[in-house]
Amino acid sequence: MIVVPGPASKELGGKIAKELNAKVIGVFFKQFPDGESYVRFEGELENENVVIVQSTCPPQDSNLIRLFLLAGTAKDLGAKKVVVVVPYLAYARQDKRFLPGEAVSVNVMARVLKAIDIDGLVTVNVHEEKVLKKFDFPAKNVSAMGVLAKYFKEKGFDGAFALAPDDGALELAKEAAEVLGGGYDWLYKKRDLHTGEVETKAKKLDVAGRDVIIFDDIISTGGTIVNAAKILKEQGARRIFAACAHPLLIGNAVERILSSGVEEIVGTDSVPSMVSKVSVAPVIAKSLAEDF
Amino acid sequence: MIVVPGPASKELGGKIAKELNAKVIGVFFKQFPDGESYVRFEGELENENVVIVQSTCPPQDSNLIRLFLLAGTAKDLGAKKVVVVVPYLAYARQDKRFLPGEAVSVNVMARVLKAIDIDGLVTVNVHEEKVLKKFDFPAKNVSAMGVLAKYFKEKGFDGAFALAPDDGALELAKEAAEVLGGGYDWLYKKRDLHTGEVETKAKKLDVAGRDVIIFDDIISTGGTIVNAAKILKEQGARRIFAACAHPLLIGNAVERILSSGVEEIVGTDSVPSMVSKVSVAPVIAKSLAEDF
Repeated sequence: MIVVPGPASKELGGKIAKELNAKVIGVFFKQFPDGESYVRFEGELENENVVIVQSTCPPQDSNLIRLFLLAGTAKDLGAKKVVVVVPYLAYARQDKRFLPGEAVSVNVMARVLKAIDIDGLVTVNVHEEKVLKKFDFPAKNVSAMGVLAKYFKEKGFDGAFALAPDDGALELAKEAAEVLGGGYDWLYKKRDLHTGEVETKAKKLDVAGRDVIIFDDIISTGGTIVNAAKILKEQGARRIFAACAHPLLIGNAVERILSSGVEEIVGTDSVPSMVSKVSVAPVIAKSLAEDF
Repeated sequence: MIVVPGPASKELGGKIAKELNAKVIGVFFKQFPDGESYVRFEGELENENVVIVQSTCPPQDSNLIRLFLLAGTAKDLGAKKVVVVVPYLAYARQDKRFLPGEAVSVNVMARVLKAIDIDGLVTVNVHEEKVLKKFDFPAKNVSAMGVLAKYFKEKGFDGAFALAPDDGALELAKEAAEVLGGGYDWLYKKRDLHTGEVETKAKKLDVAGRDVIIFDDIISTGGTIVNAAKILKEQGARRIFAACAHPLLIGNAVERILSSGVEEIVGTDSVPSMVSKVSVAPVIAKSLAEDF
């Protein structure tokens, strides 16, 4: 097996290769003055099983095009099998048509990935696992919640309460609670289809005097975390933390979250960021070894 | 026939619809705070022949993803036939592997466009016409050189000399010369595969005391035009102009070109810019009416 770290996941790709004891082939990447991307594999792929690691974190569109260029070229270069590791899978959130005429973006992505002839995909905490059923090739979702919960456990937060800031994150909090052992619960969130504004409903939680960690798949502008932190403080939570697989942290998200009473934000290297303190390499490597 | 102007070609799409006397359906477009694009057709496409007009000018990657979202959704919404008009086709320049391991980007684009199930494509002055043979669906290349030459003819430059700044543009200058009637010639350009630097070889041209218009498909950083203008001035050309289908005009290209002795730059609305004075709408509309 050969691991190819794409331009968006150079470090993570290297770590996955190390976990698997696999050879690394680099990518020479440049952007032309007009903005187009250029990629070149720096080694032979012929007759090899190739794993391309390329997150599609912001800038999503450019990272997607680079993924298409890499994956679409590997087979041309004689690779036997091409598996793509896309820890953060962009455009996966719109999986149904809410308003007439809308693009269901994940359907388009599924079709494009199929067309570039990949043999499998591994992603991390995709927003809704059911979207992978739309993919016409083996697609595996792995979870970073275990390694995130372990990070807190090792810091002494064994027994902390795991909170899902909305119902979509319920399974994530449940997974984290299995490691932390302090129980879990979830909040109910409503999104306006037109404005995109979210409202979180208050609910009695068993958090008074307890340390709480909010677990979510993505932290984008931070609004959901801020709403949850407010409810937690009102109910007398002691220390509050936020953990996620994909720290997009758009705009002033970090400042907003920290000033809402959250003490620390912890994300993974799925999306390289200032809070990417936990690596998903072991989880991804395990899936590659077992499933592909 | 329904014409849908995509977010990159709102004006051009409207003009094409007018030429064809076709109904227009708009696109509601927004970008989420994290950078992902959202598109929604603002009308019914069911059982219609749909023409989506979306150039993939800079930002190429985002305009490509928006094209994929639009075209990939039109059939889902029941469109009978979907033809895409992509006046500037990004990633079409790399059509062979110059160095081992390189992505042949146009092959990847061909595969992706095929996957989103389009019934035809119209583009304008693609860098090399032969790349369209790689497309597994009807693909038509139309030329803006006629309308560009006409613009100069109407300004009183009948009989001006048409120059191709490299051999790739020879056919373009020839086409323009058919309108202008003042003859044509071409220069020889060499590109370093690693650095991308270009060198234009001098050559005796029949330009002393004559007005000259340089015709090219794309003006990107302007280096090729500047090199040609230098040779033209050395050989005593009178007034020098530059015309192109796709005015990308990266960085300080306009300033560089104008300070090299070129009096005016004229481009088309294939790529909306400050020099897009000529519309390709009539040429595209003609092809849509005849070929699709």
